[in-house]
Amino acid sequence: MSVKERIKQLRNEMRKRGIDACIVPSSDPHQSEYVAECYTARTFITGFTGSAGTAIVTLEKAGLWTDGRYFVQAENQLIDSGVTLYKMGLDGVPTVEEFLKETLHQGAKIAFDGKVISMEYFRGLKSSLESREFSYEVNEDLVDLIWKDRPQKPCSQVVLHDVVYAGESRESKLTKVSHEMKTMGANYYVISGLDDIAWLLNIRARDVKCNPLTISYVVVSEKKYYLFINDKKINSDVRRELEKANVEIMPYESIGEFLAKIKDGVILLDVARISTWIYSSINIKILEVMDITTRFKGIKNDIQIKNVRKAMVRDGVAMVKFITWMKKTIKLRDITEIEAADKIEEIRSAGENFYDLSFASISAYKANASMPHYAATKENQATIKAQGLYLLDSGAQYLDGTTDITRTLAVGPLTQEEKTDYTLVLRGMIDLSFQRFLYGTTGSNLDIIARIPLWNAGMDYKHGTGHGVGFFLNVHEGPHRISVIPNNIVLKKGMVVSNEPGVYKEGKHGIRIENLVVVQEDEKTEHGGQFMKFETLTLCPIDLEAIDVALLTNDEKSWLNDYHKTVFEKLSTYVLGEELEYLKQATGAI
Amino acid sequence: MSVKERIKQLRNEMRKRGIDACIVPSSDPHQSEYVAECYTARTFITGFTGSAGTAIVTLEKAGLWTDGRYFVQAENQLIDSGVTLYKMGLDGVPTVEEFLKETLHQGAKIAFDGKVISMEYFRGLKSSLESREFSYEVNEDLVDLIWKDRPQKPCSQVVLHDVVYAGESRESKLTKVSHEMKTMGANYYVISGLDDIAWLLNIRARDVKCNPLTISYVVVSEKKYYLFINDKKINSDVRRELEKANVEIMPYESIGEFLAKIKDGVILLDVARISTWIYSSINIKILEVMDITTRFKGIKNDIQIKNVRKAMVRDGVAMVKFITWMKKTIKLRDITEIEAADKIEEIRSAGENFYDLSFASISAYKANASMPHYAATKENQATIKAQGLYLLDSGAQYLDGTTDITRTLAVGPLTQEEKTDYTLVLRGMIDLSFQRFLYGTTGSNLDIIARIPLWNAGMDYKHGTGHGVGFFLNVHEGPHRISVIPNNIVLKKGMVVSNEPGVYKEGKHGIRIENLVVVQEDEKTEHGGQFMKFETLTLCPIDLEAIDVALLTNDEKSWLNDYHKTVFEKLSTYVLGEELEYLKQATGAI
Repeated sequence: MSVKERIKQLRNEMRKRGIDACIVPSSDPHQSEYVAECYTARTFITGFTGSAGTAIVTLEKAGLWTDGRYFVQAENQLIDSGVTLYKMGLDGVPTVEEFLKETLHQGAKIAFDGKVISMEYFRGLKSSLESREFSYEVNEDLVDLIWKDRPQKPCSQVVLHDVVYAGESRESKLTKVSHEMKTMGANYYVISGLDDIAWLLNIRARDVKCNPLTISYVVVSEKKYYLFINDKKINSDVRRELEKANVEIMPYESIGEFLAKIKDGVILLDVARISTWIYSSINIKILEVMDITTRFKGIKNDIQIKNVRKAMVRDGVAMVKFITWMKKTIKLRDITEIEAADKIEEIRSAGENFYDLSFASISAYKANASMPHYAATKENQATIKAQGLYLLDSGAQYLDGTTDITRTLAVGPLTQEEKTDYTLVLRGMIDLSFQRFLYGTTGSNLDIIARIPLWNAGMDYKHGTGHGVGFFLNVHEGPHRISVIPNNIVLKKGMVVSNEPGVYKEGKHGIRIENLVVVQEDEKTEHGGQFMKFETLTLCPIDLEAIDVALLTNDEKSWLNDYHKTVFEKLSTYVLGEELEYLKQATGAI
Repeated sequence: MSVKERIKQLRNEMRKRGIDACIVPSSDPHQSEYVAECYTARTFITGFTGSAGTAIVTLEKAGLWTDGRYFVQAENQLIDSGVTLYKMGLDGVPTVEEFLKETLHQGAKIAFDGKVISMEYFRGLKSSLESREFSYEVNEDLVDLIWKDRPQKPCSQVVLHDVVYAGESRESKLTKVSHEMKTMGANYYVISGLDDIAWLLNIRARDVKCNPLTISYVVVSEKKYYLFINDKKINSDVRRELEKANVEIMPYESIGEFLAKIKDGVILLDVARISTWIYSSINIKILEVMDITTRFKGIKNDIQIKNVRKAMVRDGVAMVKFITWMKKTIKLRDITEIEAADKIEEIRSAGENFYDLSFASISAYKANASMPHYAATKENQATIKAQGLYLLDSGAQYLDGTTDITRTLAVGPLTQEEKTDYTLVLRGMIDLSFQRFLYGTTGSNLDIIARIPLWNAGMDYKHGTGHGVGFFLNVHEGPHRISVIPNNIVLKKGMVVSNEPGVYKEGKHGIRIENLVVVQEDEKTEHGGQFMKFETLTLCPIDLEAIDVALLTNDEKSWLNDYHKTVFEKLSTYVLGEELEYLKQATGAI
C-alpha cells in the first residue's frame, strides 16, 4: 500500500470520527529516541524513516516536520507521497503549531495516540494553540486501524547486568531512589524511560536495536517495587533475582489500571517522559520533577568508570585494527562505505564483552560526510578512493560500557582546505578537552570553547558539541549535554559526555573528531573554588596525516602528544605486526 | 524606634489578624531594582539597606535573606536587631521556602503586600510550599500600619525625552507595541516596569535616585493608550504632547479599577513585572509573555548608538580628568574614598547633557574593593595612599546615554600578585571584547570567555560578566545579560551590555575592569552564517602601570594598542595641558 493510499484510509477514519487533524510523532510510549518497529507509525504514514520528525495529517493536507540532519533524506523519501516537507528552523517555515493555527477552522478537533505523546509536549501544544478553540481527542491511535501488518511488540529476553559491571546492586539503587522520592514528599514514583528502568534494575534486553532495553514501566512505592512487563521476557533466574530485590512482575498493559487504583498520597513523575495516557490515569496528587533515575544514572560510579576505561582499550584496539586495514587496503584498491562499516563491526564484535553496536555506523566518504547523520545504502553508497577524507562514526555496547567514537581519516592526498578544516576541528576538540572549569558550570556555558577556532575562521557546525553517554545503555543519554541551547544541568564528577566538533561543506567534505570524556575533580582553590576537568576516555590515534601542524598552538600540540603517548601505552600490548607498526607511527610526537 | 520595637509592633498586628508569617521583599509595585524611599519597607523592618534581600517575620523568628554581595554589610547592619542573617547560596543555609516549611505549622497563614510581590514570585512560592497546607493573605501591608513617618510617594516632574536623543517618537513606539500586541493575539497590554514606560513614552523624571523614572502604569489598547500617574507630575506641555500621541492621563491609584472593568478580550502581561494585586484585578483572559517593551527597548536604534558614542566621549574625558587628578594628587597627599567619589561626580556633572549619576559611585581602596558592592561611608571609609590598587566603578545619566565604567588604578607601587591578577582580569575583558560569535549565541554561552584566563590561574569572580544597560535609563536593564546562569536571550545588533570581569581577594585587593560594548553585525559566511561582534563604546585608558605585559598574548596586546589609539583619537581634542599629557602617555603602545 502506498503512502498516498494510507493517508487516504487515515482520512476516512478521521471523517468517521469528526477529526480534523491527526498528529503522528516519532516516539513510543516511553518517549524513546530510537523505537521498536511496531512504534514507527510516523514512518508508516509518511515513508520517512529518520529518527526525529512529526507528521500532521488534515483532511486536505499532510506534512512532515523534521530538522536539519534529515532534510536531504526526507526530501528523497517524501517524493510522490503527497506529504509536504517542513524544514524546521528555516526562515518562513511554519512550526507544527503555526500550521495547525493557519490550517484549521475555529473549533476543530485534533487527535493523537495519547500513549506516544508526552504530557510536556501536549501541554506545550495546547498552550501554543490557546488562542484558538480546538478540542483534543487524546486516545485515538488511528494509524493502528489501517496498519494491517503492524509488527508485534518486541519480546526479547531480559538478562541481568552483573554488579561487577554496574558497580551498584539493584537493591541499593531501589533503596536510594525510594528514599529520594520520600525526601521529595512523594509516596509513589512512576518511571517510563526504558534506559532509566534498565539502569535501576540492572537488566538489559534487545527490544530496540542498538539500545539494550526492555519495554516496560516501573512503579516505586515506599516498600515495594513493580515492574510492568510482558512476563514471557522474564525467565526464572531473572524473576528470582528481581523478587529478591522486592520487585513484583506485573502485566505490561495493567499499568494504567494499577495507577488508577491508587487513591491516596502523592505520585512523582517526569512530564517529559510520561505519556498523556499514563498521566490521565492518575487520580492522586502529582509531583512533577525530572526523573530521579535520570539524575542518578547520569553520574557514573567509580566501578563503572574503571570498567569503561577497559572497554575503551578494547574499542581503541578495534579502531587501530580498522584504521591499519583501511590505510593499507585503500592503497591497493577501492573500498565501499558499507564494506568499511561491515569491517569495523566485524572487528568490534569479536571483542570481549561485546553485546551490540551502540548505533548504526556512519561510514561516509568525502561529500557524503557533510551530512552529519548520513546512512550509506547499497543503492547509493560511495566508493572510497585513495584521496581525500573518510569519516567513521561508530561505537559498541559492551557489558562494561558504551563507546562512541568518530575519526576522520586521510585516505590519500588532501587539499590545503581539507587540512585547515581538519586542524580547526581538532583545535576545538582539544581546547575543550583541556579546559578546566568551575563547579557549577553547565554544558551550555562550555559549548563554544570547541567552536571558537572555527568561528574565528568563519565556520560553524549545526549540532551540539556533545551528548551524555550511557553505561551499556543508550548512546544518547541525559540529563547533561554540551550545547549552546540553555540548560541548567551542572557538570558533575562521573558524567560521561562526548566532545565532537565538526565542519560540514556540502559537496566537498565532512569532518568530525569525537572522543568521550568523563568529568573529574580538579584542584580546589581559595579564590576560585572547586574546579572540574575532563578526563579523555576514548583511546585511538587522531590522524596526524590530516593535520596542518602550523595551525596548532603549543598547548594544543602538547595535549596531542600527551594523548598519543597515552594511547600508545594503553593499546600497544594488544596489537602486533603491522598494527603495532601503525600504532607506533600514528602516535609519534609532532 | 528600634528594629526590635518595630518587629514587636508588627507581631502585634500579625496576632490580631491570625497571621503566622509576614514576607517583606525589597521591591516596589513595579518590581524595580532600586526603589523610592517610601518603598523601603524591608529596610524599615530590618535595618538592612542593601538593594536586594527579603525579610520574613514570624511570631517567634525574624530573618533576612540576601546574597553574597551584601553578607558583610548585612552582618553589620543586623547587629542587635534580633534579625537572623541567612546567607543565600551557602551550604546548609535554608531558602525562604525551606525556612517557612520548617518553621510554620500545617495550616499557617502567610501574609504580604500583594502590590510589591510579583505574580511570578508568588507562584514560585506557592509551588515550593505546595506540600504544606498554608493559606495566603495577599493584601496585607502590615508594615504600613506601624511605619508612622513613612515618606510620601515621590512626585518629581515628568520631562519629555527629545526624539533627537531617543531616535524614535512615542507615536512610533506606541504603534509598534500595539501592533505586536495584536499580532500576539491580545487586545490589551498592561505595563508595570517603570523603565519600560519611560522608554515607551519618551518621558523621564526623578522619582528614583539615579534612575530617571516616574512611578506609573501604562495600559495599551488597540486604539488608545492610558498612563496611570499622579497628575501633579504632568505639566501642561507634557500633557499636550502625550495627548497628541493619544495617551490619556488617569489617576495612578485607578489602575486596578480600570482593569477590573474590562470584560472582553485578551490582556497581555509579564508575570515577572506585574504584582499579584494587578493580576488579581483582571477579569479577562491573560496572555503571559515577557514585556514587549522590554524586548524592543533592549535593542538600541542607530540614533541612540550615535548618541551614546557622543556621551562616551564626554564620560571618557571626565574619567581622564579624574585619573590625571588622582595620579597627581596621590603623589602629594592622601585622598579619602569619598573625596575621590565626590571628585568624579563634580567633573561629570559639569558635562553637557548631564542629568544624574547612573548609580552611587563605588570608590574603594585596596581591601575595600574586594567587596564588589562596597559603599564608602564617612564613618568607615579608607584613606587612599600612594601604594597598591584603587577601584572606581561609576557612571552617569546623560540625555544622550547612560554610562557605567570601572577602572582599577595603580596609585603607587604594586606587588607582583596585584599585577598578575590585574593582567588576568584584563585578559578576560579583552578576550570577550574581540570574540566574534554566531548569531543565535546568548550571554550564557559567552560568559566564560572572560573567566578562562582567571580559571586557568585558579581564580573566579562571583558575579555575572555583564548586564544590559539602558539608554538614559536604568544602568541594569534586561532582557539580555552575560552570565553563566541559563538564559535564552539571543544577542542582537544594538544591544548594549557591560563587560566586567574581576578578581576579589578578601583583605587584599579587588580588581574590576569594565567597558560597555554594543552588539554589531560581523561578516556572514557560507559555512558559518551571520557572525556578530562587540563594538567597545567606553573610551578611557586602561592603566598600563598595572599590567604585566609578559602575560598578554599578541592578539591581546594588539587589541589593547588599537583600543588606546582610538581612545586617544576620540578624547585628545577635549583635554589640555597635564590631562593631554597624561592621556598621551596612558594610551601609548606597549
